[in-house]
Amino acid sequence: MVMNLYGYAAKSAKSALAPFKFTRREPRANDVVIEILYCGVCHSDLHQARNDWGGSIYPLVPGHEIIGRVITVGKEVKRFKIGDNVGVGCMVDSCQHCDACEQGLEQYCEETPTYTYNSTDPHDKMLTYGGYSEKIVVSDKFVVKIPKGLDLKAAAPLLCAGITTWSPLRHWKVSKGSKVAVIGLGGLGHMALKLAKAFGANVTLFTRSPGKEKDARRLGADQVVLSTDEKQMQSVKSKFELIIDTIPNVHDLKPYLPTLSIGGTLVLVGFLGDLKPVLNTVPLIMGRKSVAGSVIGGIAETQEMLDFCGKHGITSDIEVIKIQDINEAYERMLKSDVKYRFVIDMASLKKV
Amino acid sequence: MVMNLYGYAAKSAKSALAPFKFTRREPRANDVVIEILYCGVCHSDLHQARNDWGGSIYPLVPGHEIIGRVITVGKEVKRFKIGDNVGVGCMVDSCQHCDACEQGLEQYCEETPTYTYNSTDPHDKMLTYGGYSEKIVVSDKFVVKIPKGLDLKAAAPLLCAGITTWSPLRHWKVSKGSKVAVIGLGGLGHMALKLAKAFGANVTLFTRSPGKEKDARRLGADQVVLSTDEKQMQSVKSKFELIIDTIPNVHDLKPYLPTLSIGGTLVLVGFLGDLKPVLNTVPLIMGRKSVAGSVIGGIAETQEMLDFCGKHGITSDIEVIKIQDINEAYERMLKSDVKYRFVIDMASLKKV
Repeated sequence: MVMNLYGYAAKSAKSALAPFKFTRREPRANDVVIEILYCGVCHSDLHQARNDWGGSIYPLVPGHEIIGRVITVGKEVKRFKIGDNVGVGCMVDSCQHCDACEQGLEQYCEETPTYTYNSTDPHDKMLTYGGYSEKIVVSDKFVVKIPKGLDLKAAAPLLCAGITTWSPLRHWKVSKGSKVAVIGLGGLGHMALKLAKAFGANVTLFTRSPGKEKDARRLGADQVVLSTDEKQMQSVKSKFELIIDTIPNVHDLKPYLPTLSIGGTLVLVGFLGDLKPVLNTVPLIMGRKSVAGSVIGGIAETQEMLDFCGKHGITSDIEVIKIQDINEAYERMLKSDVKYRFVIDMASLKKV
Repeated sequence: MVMNLYGYAAKSAKSALAPFKFTRREPRANDVVIEILYCGVCHSDLHQARNDWGGSIYPLVPGHEIIGRVITVGKEVKRFKIGDNVGVGCMVDSCQHCDACEQGLEQYCEETPTYTYNSTDPHDKMLTYGGYSEKIVVSDKFVVKIPKGLDLKAAAPLLCAGITTWSPLRHWKVSKGSKVAVIGLGGLGHMALKLAKAFGANVTLFTRSPGKEKDARRLGADQVVLSTDEKQMQSVKSKFELIIDTIPNVHDLKPYLPTLSIGGTLVLVGFLGDLKPVLNTVPLIMGRKSVAGSVIGGIAETQEMLDFCGKHGITSDIEVIKIQDINEAYERMLKSDVKYRFVIDMASLKKV
């Protein structure tokens, strides 16, 4: 039997999010049904609600930083039982047979992963709806365990902001003593600082806004560099093996490339679009430097990240909101007025 | 005593190369004096003779694929003796104390290497003059040995075209079974095919010109893909771990990025300038792909490459010319009318 549920949806690119009744599939044998307790608010929720990237299908229920409790398991499910605290990130399925999936890199599935919302389920062709809702039904392979001891609401952003910064830090082998910089202090940036610091790296924050020094240091930065100050930029010339660029809007990479050391990589994790102004090859060629991209992370990698965060007591800095305040939260997010992630307490939905 | 010598120089960006009398420094204690036997003709010789990159100082004697015989050694020189066959590539000095130099990456010297021509010697402030000349005086650290058995004239292009493609193949760990593509079949491209094949890679050539199939296969390509043919491009989707892009002019990277596998890298070795049309981040982010650059290689690495080529009998496919034919050779090079590198027989200079 399909499930009738409440959530919050954008009905069009121009409309505010509002209560929405919808159905989810009848659970399959390998499904886990999760009562959603908390859902983080990602910048891409806003992009998709407003169709900034094109391709949004309405009504659209955003939300892919989902923390909840298992309330039903299908008969083939072995890894979860009723009452478990679990998480769901940006994906709820993938082909499971391409090279990427076989390597545990479901985020790069050659047939495109099934995203948690605004995607079509390949089995029943139903549209997927995200975590701004009461419950979700997810194939067990795409459910992760939340380690004991982590604050559940503050763990929600780990499912996207956490794994998005964890994956490049791991892929580019950041470890003790690595020199890492993070561009931008938002949801992704503040997680990148915490994780890089936990790996033992020497961590620098690049920011355009003065006054972030104290917070950045608290979050793990050893140094804060104002990217608009040429002298400060010069002082970190050729320094960084890896730069995690979390800026979600178009921006010039030129000031940052000279701060990479020989063979260094600047990895874009926040901005989808044309790299303007145009990139010049000279700083790449004359220093064996790379400009790369990375998106979220695989499921096994997400579990590894959560386990690490459990062990090291790492969560996101959050501001808890009611679902009724989501539209105001979007406006504040556009002004970077959040430290550093909104998380919806889904109990508020019951008052709809 | 300074040495009075003959060479061929461009007197301005607009003038043809012509005979030129000039002086080189009195050899220092660590210098090797080399009688130049052969000098390869690199596309960048032409770029610099014509001031395409700006910064050319005239008269300019090009040439950085130098093969010669040692005729004098300074008293501190231990590694070379009179009569040795030696090579000189793109650099004749570097600071020797920065991080890059200490790692043997003199090509990325933080104080900028002293290039073989159109550079200022840091010791005596004399302008450097390249290999289109009778003799050259070079610090022993920047002289490499040519292994026995290699055809000297066909070895000349290894000093630039060879090392420029060797270095990224090695850095990105190409080995048996690696899937590698090469864009462009010129001086660099044909060396990339030979070297990648010698490493045991599965090698594909991307070309815009039909009719290169036979030659490409002879040089080491397992497959030739017409980059203008969408169906052929589709057939190599997600295939390559590494693409060596040897195109010396501005070109669109967009058709090539989907042919990289997850985590793959496209490395630019030929084009210095603005990447137009503008690069879009989506193919990078949605496949953890990189766009990188690489320039020549370090001295130890150049020796390693030469030793490998000696062992495997690898040289360049060349057309030998007289120095008097250099201007015609430049015109032919602009039309890609050379298979695959012009090499000047410097004996012809004695007839000036």
